[in-house]
Amino acid sequence: MIKIAIVGFGIVGRSFAELLLRKRETLAKRIGEFEVVLVADSKSAMYGEFDLREAIEIKKKSGRLKYDAKAVELLQELDYDVLVECTPTRIDGGEGVEHMRIALSSGAHVVTSNKSIVAAFRELEELAEKKGVRLMYEATVGAAIPVIRTIRGYLSTFTITGLAGVLNGTCNYILTRMEDEGLSYEHVLREAIELGIAEADPSYDVEGIDAAIKLVILANTIGIDARFEDVERRGISFLTPEAFKAASEKGYTIRLVAEAGDSLSVRPRLVRKGHPLATRGTMNVIVLHTEEAGSISLAGRGAGGVETASAMLSDLVAIYDSSR
Amino acid sequence: MIKIAIVGFGIVGRSFAELLLRKRETLAKRIGEFEVVLVADSKSAMYGEFDLREAIEIKKKSGRLKYDAKAVELLQELDYDVLVECTPTRIDGGEGVEHMRIALSSGAHVVTSNKSIVAAFRELEELAEKKGVRLMYEATVGAAIPVIRTIRGYLSTFTITGLAGVLNGTCNYILTRMEDEGLSYEHVLREAIELGIAEADPSYDVEGIDAAIKLVILANTIGIDARFEDVERRGISFLTPEAFKAASEKGYTIRLVAEAGDSLSVRPRLVRKGHPLATRGTMNVIVLHTEEAGSISLAGRGAGGVETASAMLSDLVAIYDSSR
Repeated sequence: MIKIAIVGFGIVGRSFAELLLRKRETLAKRIGEFEVVLVADSKSAMYGEFDLREAIEIKKKSGRLKYDAKAVELLQELDYDVLVECTPTRIDGGEGVEHMRIALSSGAHVVTSNKSIVAAFRELEELAEKKGVRLMYEATVGAAIPVIRTIRGYLSTFTITGLAGVLNGTCNYILTRMEDEGLSYEHVLREAIELGIAEADPSYDVEGIDAAIKLVILANTIGIDARFEDVERRGISFLTPEAFKAASEKGYTIRLVAEAGDSLSVRPRLVRKGHPLATRGTMNVIVLHTEEAGSISLAGRGAGGVETASAMLSDLVAIYDSSR
Repeated sequence: MIKIAIVGFGIVGRSFAELLLRKRETLAKRIGEFEVVLVADSKSAMYGEFDLREAIEIKKKSGRLKYDAKAVELLQELDYDVLVECTPTRIDGGEGVEHMRIALSSGAHVVTSNKSIVAAFRELEELAEKKGVRLMYEATVGAAIPVIRTIRGYLSTFTITGLAGVLNGTCNYILTRMEDEGLSYEHVLREAIELGIAEADPSYDVEGIDAAIKLVILANTIGIDARFEDVERRGISFLTPEAFKAASEKGYTIRLVAEAGDSLSVRPRLVRKGHPLATRGTMNVIVLHTEEAGSISLAGRGAGGVETASAMLSDLVAIYDSSR
């Protein structure tokens, strides 16, 4: 019986729980029986014997779970085999990293969507290795796009020389609209905030912070010992409709491109139309440069609750099912 | 000690042998010691104790290997753990399928780039399962693009509802040139033959036969019991520069798209510019439609000796190394 602890019970955590319920039978065939022994958000929890469906409903209705509790304490007290960590990203690591540290130290695997790992990547990786458990973080970059799996699995026999990506859907939506409609940055940003595509304070996205965090995760995955501070970063707010027009006349568009190679950067770049990086709307794309086979690119939706949770479910199965 | 038999010693087979030599040390760390106990082409072979580097040189210089021999017989007589099969594709299966049948029956794994598997997909899969060995065929579709791995591994917890792809680099090169330069099909085809991008008899590519074979392999991989005859197929020779012009004015281009869903088809289709299927030149792309996460697309070079051999090497390692 695999015991699963879910910490972080917002949209991603609940989507993950929903997937467990919906796919219970097929999952059981792959990894055997499992049960969720803990769900927790920042201030409340349910654990022991409880109904997962009920927990989802309670949280949806009341915004909290049944009991006042601190996840940090529960993770030290309870017995579980895998921590599914989906609390919000904090660039300094914060509680998310603490949750993972506790779980790995106690010999539990970790599956996470939490980009906080950027603050302690090597530490967590080394801890996992020391304890003989797995740290799985496919969901941190590009939602369901299987980039981490591809790098660590399939491409592990290749030589990866670098990578480039469009890693932030909000920026890409704004740039695509500016390109298509000839609208100003301010106009499209306002619209994106109204549509819920951008946050009320959009700086995390439009200044390239989110893309830089994801870039650092990818860079570490291909073996570059990088930190957030190493990324040369420029946002998109200075771009004008005129810049798009000038680019377009020469067959180019402009995208916020994250690159890792000799150095790390996130900045607006000219991209030839038809190039994989010239992706549109909220899509993300990662282009992996290999010595043996040129560039291999992976693209898909860059965000979304079910998308992210699906990546985590695939990670969970990969821990226990090595038949494929 | 893993004993490897390589059958088919053209560009792909030799590229695979070169990779084994070049990556010997890192491979040994992943899968342990290995040796090549047989290399064979259609009429000649070297086996037992021999120097792999020498075999590559002899074949390159003389077009054949040291001893007259039939691979079918050697595969029955010799002792090996994995057959690496890279003889040319024959739509009726031919010797390639016979080689794989012998290997699987004797309890050896098979890694292949040979699209002949299309003629006997279920039979070979069932034989592998019965014998408890693996049939690995990543290299049959899109060279090094990890589409088979992604479907069978990462996406095995997703619901795949269908797929679409640009699976033939020769056609895509011709269509891209027609689009960019406003040239006629005949003109670009002649040019492609001169450049070695198209065969002197190009019908296998331009009539969509190659794309249809790959489509059937992909369809089977996502669980559709399909055969070559099931594919509704139309080639690209009827397309005109005027068709591209009319499409372009509306923001579209034309690509030879292979699709699997309710039915199977290969035919020229209008594709919106900027869509993942609007890939350029000899690139291939596969778009996988999922219930959970929309479309995920994988793109890269569609052909090439080292590219194809690299996919096979990754398949080989996956058989023996399940640590990732």
